[in-house]
Amino acid sequence: MTATLKEFLEACETLGTLRLIVTSSAAVLEAKATIEKLFYAELPKGNYANMHKDALEFHLNMNAIKQVKFEMGESKRGNFTTYAIRFLDDKGEPALSAFLQWGKPGEYVPGQVEAWQTLREQYGEVWEPAPAA
Amino acid sequence: MTATLKEFLEACETLGTLRLIVTSSAAVLEAKATIEKLFYAELPKGNYANMHKDALEFHLNMNAIKQVKFEMGESKRGNFTTYAIRFLDDKGEPALSAFLQWGKPGEYVPGQVEAWQTLREQYGEVWEPAPAA
Repeated sequence: MTATLKEFLEACETLGTLRLIVTSSAAVLEAKATIEKLFYAELPKGNYANMHKDALEFHLNMNAIKQVKFEMGESKRGNFTTYAIRFLDDKGEPALSAFLQWGKPGEYVPGQVEAWQTLREQYGEVWEPAPAA
Repeated sequence: MTATLKEFLEACETLGTLRLIVTSSAAVLEAKATIEKLFYAELPKGNYANMHKDALEFHLNMNAIKQVKFEMGESKRGNFTTYAIRFLDDKGEPALSAFLQWGKPGEYVPGQVEAWQTLREQYGEVWEPAPAA
């Protein structure tokens, strides 16, 4: 499937509450949020997708994301399955990760895992966003 | 003043609500939070300060922070003064930024700016954390 990152990010609203994770050289910030009401801005560095909520802001340079990867894993605590989407930069490092957010460990909202699986089927386990039009 | 980063982070509770900002190669996540109830973990990568809240998690590899810088600036929108603390890595890049969080643009909680100024006087505008004991 050929798709832009913009289209994919908007489809991510179907995933419900996500745990967004951004990591720098020393710090990790993780925030619970639904991806919704994105707005866009062309900046010198690239085309940004942006989201403003009461308690958080999120910005993504879409031009800097070269690959998107669906990844199942095992939780560090609780022995349950995690469902992540990794947004990889030109070095193959995750510039952004989005995990399906559980309530109690391992308890997902009904339909949430299915929505993740549907996106994985549509886009493929690893895919490269098409350049924006 | 000789201080460890742990001591400084705990003193940051006096700053009230902060806007914590972590930036990767492509993404920026900003979350409003007070730095409080930190707990610590020794991991192979370094000594981590950690914070868990309802809607966010925060982790900082304290060994990777080489310098701390107090920085006044001007807001992008609204023409008011911003008060930040930059936690710089070994390349001098901000691995974490913490801005005093305003309510309405430029409106800080009484005492908040003074608390930032007090810390700046105590620690100095730019200072290097002492290695943890």
